[in-house]
Amino acid sequence: MTVMITLNEVIALLKEKDNILILSHRFPDGDTLGSAYALCGALQRLGKNASVLCSDQMPDKFSYMKKAIKEQVFSPKYIVAVDVAAKKLLGSLENEYGDKVDLCIDHHSTNEIYAEKTYVESNSAATAEIIYLIVNEMLGTIPKEIADCLYTGISTDTGCFKFSNVTSRTHKIAAELIDAGCESAKISKAMFDTKSKSRIAIEKEVLEGLEFRFNGLCAIVTLTLDMIASSGAVEDDIDGISSLPRQIEGVVAGITLREVSEGGYKVSLRTADEINAAKVASKFGGGGHSAAAGCSINDSIENAKNALANAVEDALIECGLIKR
Amino acid sequence: MTVMITLNEVIALLKEKDNILILSHRFPDGDTLGSAYALCGALQRLGKNASVLCSDQMPDKFSYMKKAIKEQVFSPKYIVAVDVAAKKLLGSLENEYGDKVDLCIDHHSTNEIYAEKTYVESNSAATAEIIYLIVNEMLGTIPKEIADCLYTGISTDTGCFKFSNVTSRTHKIAAELIDAGCESAKISKAMFDTKSKSRIAIEKEVLEGLEFRFNGLCAIVTLTLDMIASSGAVEDDIDGISSLPRQIEGVVAGITLREVSEGGYKVSLRTADEINAAKVASKFGGGGHSAAAGCSINDSIENAKNALANAVEDALIECGLIKR
Repeated sequence: MTVMITLNEVIALLKEKDNILILSHRFPDGDTLGSAYALCGALQRLGKNASVLCSDQMPDKFSYMKKAIKEQVFSPKYIVAVDVAAKKLLGSLENEYGDKVDLCIDHHSTNEIYAEKTYVESNSAATAEIIYLIVNEMLGTIPKEIADCLYTGISTDTGCFKFSNVTSRTHKIAAELIDAGCESAKISKAMFDTKSKSRIAIEKEVLEGLEFRFNGLCAIVTLTLDMIASSGAVEDDIDGISSLPRQIEGVVAGITLREVSEGGYKVSLRTADEINAAKVASKFGGGGHSAAAGCSINDSIENAKNALANAVEDALIECGLIKR
Repeated sequence: MTVMITLNEVIALLKEKDNILILSHRFPDGDTLGSAYALCGALQRLGKNASVLCSDQMPDKFSYMKKAIKEQVFSPKYIVAVDVAAKKLLGSLENEYGDKVDLCIDHHSTNEIYAEKTYVESNSAATAEIIYLIVNEMLGTIPKEIADCLYTGISTDTGCFKFSNVTSRTHKIAAELIDAGCESAKISKAMFDTKSKSRIAIEKEVLEGLEFRFNGLCAIVTLTLDMIASSGAVEDDIDGISSLPRQIEGVVAGITLREVSEGGYKVSLRTADEINAAKVASKFGGGGHSAAAGCSINDSIENAKNALANAVEDALIECGLIKR
């Protein structure tokens, strides 16, 4: 039996419980880690035992977050998941903890309500916004190290305040975090203005194969296994590539095909408002949001590109951008 | 005789005067235009005649700012410069207006105090922050079209809230502008997530010629006249390139050489904290700030690169990053 609770109930529960284990989602990003480390640091400052656990290793660029907490060894009595919209997103921790999450704090409207108690605020730009409210209420102040974690969560989940999920509250919280001493410029530089050499190498390769269709309305890039191997690119490098074709002026549908096996492609679709990415992806058994979706295609690269281009063509016709 | 005045005096003067001409700096950016259009729109809403003038054409991407004002024809009686740190930055308007600026509102600490009355707030991230305070005081509210102009000024002068000039006030004002209805996501997308096809083309060429020196501490890119011509790149496309080499992980000195004539190069230096870019540039008769500076070199490309690399080597030795 799952129950939706209020923010005040979340705060009351956290104040009451002890020996708290906080779970982040697999392939951890700035929001799930920033939320987890900030909450953990706040609970420890209240004299509680608390720790953070994630199925995958923390990417190096987030390592400063560890300053917000002390390592503690204890037997967990209360399990909290932050920014984890579904059990399966616990990755390798799903087996052990999937059915044991006592409290889930999240901002995804798609949350599968798998925890015993759930608090979802889907108009929050980041889970870290909610954690800010909780920490501020619990401690009455935001320590600098916790502010750094929260700022990271908020800035990374909003593309540094660029996305449409940003509200005035997002900026008001950022202002409070800066007043609390967070190193916003240093964090922003590490998150948004630093590219690995592998990322630069794979970006160059990708741009060489850039193709346009429908008079520049659609751009297609391909990442082959060879390109990934020769550039030394890791997941983090590849992540940013899928937003690249859509960034080109005039492009309303950006397609990234990533080879995952011989004749197997993972496809990312990024579209402008008019084009429904989820609808295009659904033609290939995929899904997602209206502006960002994905699917898999097992076929030759040329067949895959053509099939995707045909699906995009239908969408372009539908919204009157081209004629049949 | 020039006088430094207070913000309240600025507001009193603007309320008192009429037939106001507002000047932006040459090669206009988001802050000088956003400040000018917002101030003009506010003065017009007070029933005054006001207009904006700039020596150079407004880049297309800012054209939505025109919605904040009505075109008015009148004989200017009071001249206000916004975000213009020196007379010469008026460009072709310097001759006519350079000695006639009644009021200058700016955030550059380097302001040459050329106007009759000057208000400089150098801890303001953007001149648009100051204009926000003025407009809010004059109108008691921020109309949506004016909020769009101010948001543009603030976001562009802070790299979308990434730079070290951002304060908690910057975010608090952004929050107010969002509450006033500004289309922050749409503006941010146009300013930061849109690349022209020419920019993509020149970026690809530049990455092909990317060189590293000193074990990756220094990265060098070259823009030739041929590359600029064949890609169709314009100033706006080229601008962003100079921040590219410095963005690479591990690079503390990023050098961009742009060919401006046969054997003539305009050099941009971007450095991390330890390396003083202005000091390196000064060896070639140039100058700038500690993290961003420039100079010109008339020599072959190989000689120019080697001379710059030698100067960077001295700086790397000086701060202990390499040994002689």
